[in-house]
Amino acid sequence: MTDYKALFDEYRAKIDTALSHYLQTQTKRSYFSEKQYPHTLFIPLNYIMDGSGKRIRPLILLICCETFGGTVDDALNAAIAVEILHNFTLVHDDIMDNADTRRNKVTIHKKWDINTAILVGDELIGLSYRSLLNTRTGRLDEVVKAFTDGVIEVCEGQALDKEYETSTDVTLEDYMNMIRKKTAELLRIAAMMGCIIANANEKDLLAISGYAENLGLAFQIQDDLLDVIANEEKFGKKIGGDILEKKKTYLYLKALELSNDGEREILKDIYNSDDKAAGKIKEVINIYRRLKVEDYAKKDVEYFTEKANDCLAMIDSTEGKSKLNYFSNTLLNRNY
Amino acid sequence: MTDYKALFDEYRAKIDTALSHYLQTQTKRSYFSEKQYPHTLFIPLNYIMDGSGKRIRPLILLICCETFGGTVDDALNAAIAVEILHNFTLVHDDIMDNADTRRNKVTIHKKWDINTAILVGDELIGLSYRSLLNTRTGRLDEVVKAFTDGVIEVCEGQALDKEYETSTDVTLEDYMNMIRKKTAELLRIAAMMGCIIANANEKDLLAISGYAENLGLAFQIQDDLLDVIANEEKFGKKIGGDILEKKKTYLYLKALELSNDGEREILKDIYNSDDKAAGKIKEVINIYRRLKVEDYAKKDVEYFTEKANDCLAMIDSTEGKSKLNYFSNTLLNRNY
Repeated sequence: MTDYKALFDEYRAKIDTALSHYLQTQTKRSYFSEKQYPHTLFIPLNYIMDGSGKRIRPLILLICCETFGGTVDDALNAAIAVEILHNFTLVHDDIMDNADTRRNKVTIHKKWDINTAILVGDELIGLSYRSLLNTRTGRLDEVVKAFTDGVIEVCEGQALDKEYETSTDVTLEDYMNMIRKKTAELLRIAAMMGCIIANANEKDLLAISGYAENLGLAFQIQDDLLDVIANEEKFGKKIGGDILEKKKTYLYLKALELSNDGEREILKDIYNSDDKAAGKIKEVINIYRRLKVEDYAKKDVEYFTEKANDCLAMIDSTEGKSKLNYFSNTLLNRNY
Repeated sequence: MTDYKALFDEYRAKIDTALSHYLQTQTKRSYFSEKQYPHTLFIPLNYIMDGSGKRIRPLILLICCETFGGTVDDALNAAIAVEILHNFTLVHDDIMDNADTRRNKVTIHKKWDINTAILVGDELIGLSYRSLLNTRTGRLDEVVKAFTDGVIEVCEGQALDKEYETSTDVTLEDYMNMIRKKTAELLRIAAMMGCIIANANEKDLLAISGYAENLGLAFQIQDDLLDVIANEEKFGKKIGGDILEKKKTYLYLKALELSNDGEREILKDIYNSDDKAAGKIKEVINIYRRLKVEDYAKKDVEYFTEKANDCLAMIDSTEGKSKLNYFSNTLLNRNY
C-alpha cells in the first residue's frame, strides 16, 4: 500500500506554501503607499490565515483532481480558494457565536472588534474568488458556479443553525438538513471542483458528490459524538462543550426523540436555564447514556460512511478509491 | 435629441423587474420545507432589497453594453448582480457606521440584529455571483474577474474609510485614493462589465474605464458638497450631517489644508469633541465659506467631470457618447 500519509502531508505542504504565497502577494501589493495600505484589514487577515487548519477541503479537492487525471498544479489555486472561503465562514460564524477562541487563538472580533471581523470575512470572500479565477481548467465557469453554490448553502445553513438555537421544535431531520448545508456542502463542493478541473465525466461527478456529502454528514455526527466521549488531552476540547453552549447537536435531538416525558423535561430545562454548573453537563450525559444515543450516533456515522463508500465504489480508479478511502479514515479520526 | 429620460426609466423598470424576479426565485425555492426555510435570512434580505435605489450601477452597465453592440437581455443578469453587490456593501457598511436608517428605512442591524445583518450581507454576495454567472457572454471569465476586483477594492476602501475616522493625519490625497476604491471602483467595474459583455475592444474598455472612474470621483465630491449646500427638502438630507458625524470629507480635508493655525485648531477641536450642538456645524460651515472650500470642491467636480468627458470622447459611438453624457448629468444632479 502506498504511504498515503506521506502523500497527504506533501499535498498539505503544497497547499500551505501556495496559500502563504498568495496572501503575501495580495496583502503586500506594491502599489500601496504606507498610508494607503489598509492595515486594519490586512493585519487581522494575516493573523487569522496564519493559523494552521487541517486543510480538509483543499485536500479532498486535490485528491479528486488527481484521481480523474488532473494535476495538483491545475487545482492548487482552486484548493486555496476553498480554504480561504472556509476561513471566511469561521470569522463570521465566530462573531455570531460570540466565540472567544478558534484553534487556540483569540478570535478576530475579540482581539480587534466586530467591524474588523466583518470586513476581514468580506475581503476573504473576494480573495477566495480571485484565487479561484486563476485555476487552470477549460471548465472554469462550472467551477465558479459550484463554488458560488457553496457560498450560498453555507450562509443558509448558518442561518438555520442560529434559528434552531432559539427554536423549540427542532427535529433530528431538521438538524441533518442544516448540517448538510453548513458542513457537508463545502466538502462536497470542494470535491466536485477537483473533479470538474480534471474534466471528470457526469457519472464520476455524481459518485463523488454522493461520497463527499455522506462523508461530511458522518464527520459532523462524529464531531458531535466526540464532544461527550473524546479524550480531552487528545482532542483539545472540553468534554460537554456543546452541552454547555446549549447546542442542539445530533445527540441532544436524538435524546429528545427517545426520551420519556420526565427526561425530556430535564433536557429542555437544562437547555433553557442559564445555570452552567458542571453537574448539569453530567446530568445530560447520563441521560444520553441511559438512552444509548451514543450508540445511535455511532450507527449513523457507520451508515453515512457506508453510503459514502457505496458512492465511491462507483468510480473506476482503484488508486482513487484507495486514496479517498484513506482520506475518509483520516477525516473520521480512524488512522490509528 | 432622443428622450433619454424615458429610455433610462425603461432600463430601470427592466432592472427592477429582473431583480425582483430573481430574488423571488432565490428566496422561494420550492425544495424548502417550512422548517428548513431560513426565515431569519430571507425576510430581512427581501426587506432591504425592496427598497428602491437609484440603480446607478446597473444602469451604467446596461448603457455601456448597448453602446458597444450588446443587448439589455445579454447584460441584465450582470446588471442585477452589481446592484445586489452594492446592497451587500450598504448592509455591512451600515453595521460598521452604526447607521440607524438607510433610504428612509430602519437598517437591518437595528430592526433585527448585527448577526442577521452580517449573514444577509454574506448571502447577498453569494446571490450576486449566482446571478452574474447567468450572464450571456463569451467573455464570462473576464466579467467575473472584474466583478471580483470590485468586491476586493470596495472592502479595502471601506477599511481605509474606517481607519481615517480615527487617524489624525489624513490628507486630501489619501481621501481621493479611498473614495476611488470605495465609491468610484464599483461604478467603473459596472461600466467595464457592460463593455466586456458587449465584446468591446481594448481601446474602448480603457476609455470607459477612465470615464466611469472620473465620474465616480466627481460624484463623491459633489455628494460631499451637497452636505453643506443642498436644499434639505429636495435632497432629503440634513444640512451638515457629515460634520455632525465627523466624516473627513473633501470639504473638511481641503479646509484643513487651507486653514491657518487658529482655524485648524477649531476644526480639529470640533471633530475631536463629542459636543453635537448645532452651533458647531455652523462654525465649521463658516470656516468652509471663509476658505472657499466649496469653490474648490466645485472646481474639482468640474475637473473630474471634464476628465471623464475627455475619456468619453475617445469612443467612436456618437449615440453612446450622448447617452453616457446624459447619464453623467443625471448622476451629478444636473438634469433640471
